[in-house]
Amino acid sequence: MAKAAEGMGTLEGYSGYGAEQGQPALRQAICDRLYKAVGRKSSEIFVSDGSKCDIGRLQMMFGNNVTVALQDPAYPVYVDSSVIMGMTGDFNSVGFDGVTYMKCLPENDFFPNLEAVPRTDVIFFCSPNNPTGAAATRSQLTELVNFAKRNGSIIVYDAAYALFISDPDCPKTIFEIPGAEECCIETCSFSKYAGFTGVRLGWTVVPEQLRYADGTQVMNDFTRIMTTVFNGASKISQAGGLACLEEEGWKEMVDLVNFYKENAVILRNTFKEMGFTVYGGDNAPYVWVGFPGRKSWDVFAEILEKCDIVTTPGSGFGPAGESFVRASAFGHRENILEAVERLKKVYSN
Amino acid sequence: MAKAAEGMGTLEGYSGYGAEQGQPALRQAICDRLYKAVGRKSSEIFVSDGSKCDIGRLQMMFGNNVTVALQDPAYPVYVDSSVIMGMTGDFNSVGFDGVTYMKCLPENDFFPNLEAVPRTDVIFFCSPNNPTGAAATRSQLTELVNFAKRNGSIIVYDAAYALFISDPDCPKTIFEIPGAEECCIETCSFSKYAGFTGVRLGWTVVPEQLRYADGTQVMNDFTRIMTTVFNGASKISQAGGLACLEEEGWKEMVDLVNFYKENAVILRNTFKEMGFTVYGGDNAPYVWVGFPGRKSWDVFAEILEKCDIVTTPGSGFGPAGESFVRASAFGHRENILEAVERLKKVYSN
Repeated sequence: MAKAAEGMGTLEGYSGYGAEQGQPALRQAICDRLYKAVGRKSSEIFVSDGSKCDIGRLQMMFGNNVTVALQDPAYPVYVDSSVIMGMTGDFNSVGFDGVTYMKCLPENDFFPNLEAVPRTDVIFFCSPNNPTGAAATRSQLTELVNFAKRNGSIIVYDAAYALFISDPDCPKTIFEIPGAEECCIETCSFSKYAGFTGVRLGWTVVPEQLRYADGTQVMNDFTRIMTTVFNGASKISQAGGLACLEEEGWKEMVDLVNFYKENAVILRNTFKEMGFTVYGGDNAPYVWVGFPGRKSWDVFAEILEKCDIVTTPGSGFGPAGESFVRASAFGHRENILEAVERLKKVYSN
Repeated sequence: MAKAAEGMGTLEGYSGYGAEQGQPALRQAICDRLYKAVGRKSSEIFVSDGSKCDIGRLQMMFGNNVTVALQDPAYPVYVDSSVIMGMTGDFNSVGFDGVTYMKCLPENDFFPNLEAVPRTDVIFFCSPNNPTGAAATRSQLTELVNFAKRNGSIIVYDAAYALFISDPDCPKTIFEIPGAEECCIETCSFSKYAGFTGVRLGWTVVPEQLRYADGTQVMNDFTRIMTTVFNGASKISQAGGLACLEEEGWKEMVDLVNFYKENAVILRNTFKEMGFTVYGGDNAPYVWVGFPGRKSWDVFAEILEKCDIVTTPGSGFGPAGESFVRASAFGHRENILEAVERLKKVYSN
């Protein structure tokens, strides 16, 4: 990135507008590393300034006249952007009218009971899930894809934590599932893989086989969105993304992910040892800790007051997040170990 | 920017999420350089990855249930994003139903006859204008602001070329006009000032005085948009913006703008000498050349075929752009001079 920045001041290294869909070399590198084996093409990969922003642009593409389903709990941007676009009704003190909340709880293995889910135009699905840390299995995702195909729904599959998956039974991209190319859009990001949260770089895959009922390609609409209300990710950030996908960068990225996975294991084991019911943390950077019968915000406040540790109250991710808090593995090892000591002092019997 | 990129690999220089509205130092520097004198505050400045993207986010904020007016001709993003959001009707072979096209032609000094313009919720206005190069005067902008206030309209004022203004009678920000803070949002960019088209950095000013009819601040909604479907401009690009606003950077930026202004004068004089009617080019990087009675695309094709020069057909900017082509001053001097030679060979009598 430093080289690319220096280059901007030279005739040879300068780069202006376009391509809004991303530098061809970066689209190709993302495809080669992650999607070629599952039949995707570089022309289907749209490089962006991040998945959050892409979710906003996808919502703009869908328009206000669609129905939405999402995991409960889930990353709040799915429901918030749906509200902003006018896809929902009013807040009803639990959630928003018109939104289908698909409960993901320990009792259903954090995978929704699709037989009880009504048809919607769009389904947001994040795996490994933020906040629960649950990674869906191949058979679960096959069920989800078949459900979407049967209903003519589009799944927006958020794979932001896919690299954290260890379990070989959990696909790292939705396009491992046959037929997904006909009903899925996948969004992903360098944020959690390479610490690019401040660099801003992500991508979204829109397969050429994904079509509306009238036969037109969704890809055409997304191209229009990306070229009309977006102007490409910073060329400097894109240079960083390209470096991440080279041999050395890829190795460093995997090492970084493994480092955070170790943090997650430390956190998970700590909560377990203290007698709590713990989920996630094996295929995800998040540990989901249950406090049955208590309010998330009360638990949050207690941990903050007694341990000087900030957790994330589960109810912020949706009604079904109540009575949980999320612990994040994204931290320096010494901070994680310090947190463990403080937690043990208060919560160990 | 190179330093900021290197810094990302260090504990001290690393920077992750937030603030989504921009680094406080950059918001302050933009305010100090450009807006403090007209009463704006740094808290009203939202740093972004560019004006085009901000226009998309503003449209998402406005929602689909608003009416829109725009200059004709104008930067196509205003109408295109309105269509995408569902604010308009169908294409009627000239323009889109439901959009108020405010004709800006030589006969009205490129400023709309507001008495003939119906009330709309939103008015897009770009000055100096892309493509005509016309910069609105203080009295014209006062008329526009009063029109918007009277109607309860919000003006989205695109000031992307403001630094190109030489005429002291043409304001460099809409906030020079009394009352603008109650009806205007201004968007601007480093793209044309510092060659940042590939770096991606801009900003939008939403004054705290700007309120909806119910008294709530528009700023609150824009904050929600910027934090929900955006995650801040790249920290590396923001470091570049900060450098642009320091003494040395500012001087270089002004020098760069002056260089392109010289290009514009060369182009304008060339077309004039060849007997064409020419507008713009004095307060803007664009020269607007009239070919009365001819189609823009025919003129474009002729110049391309006979001179191997790409111009921009005026009709692409709206119906009132027909019979014009736009010449851009953004080029190397030797290319501009080469273009002049080629044009003269074909069009000089």
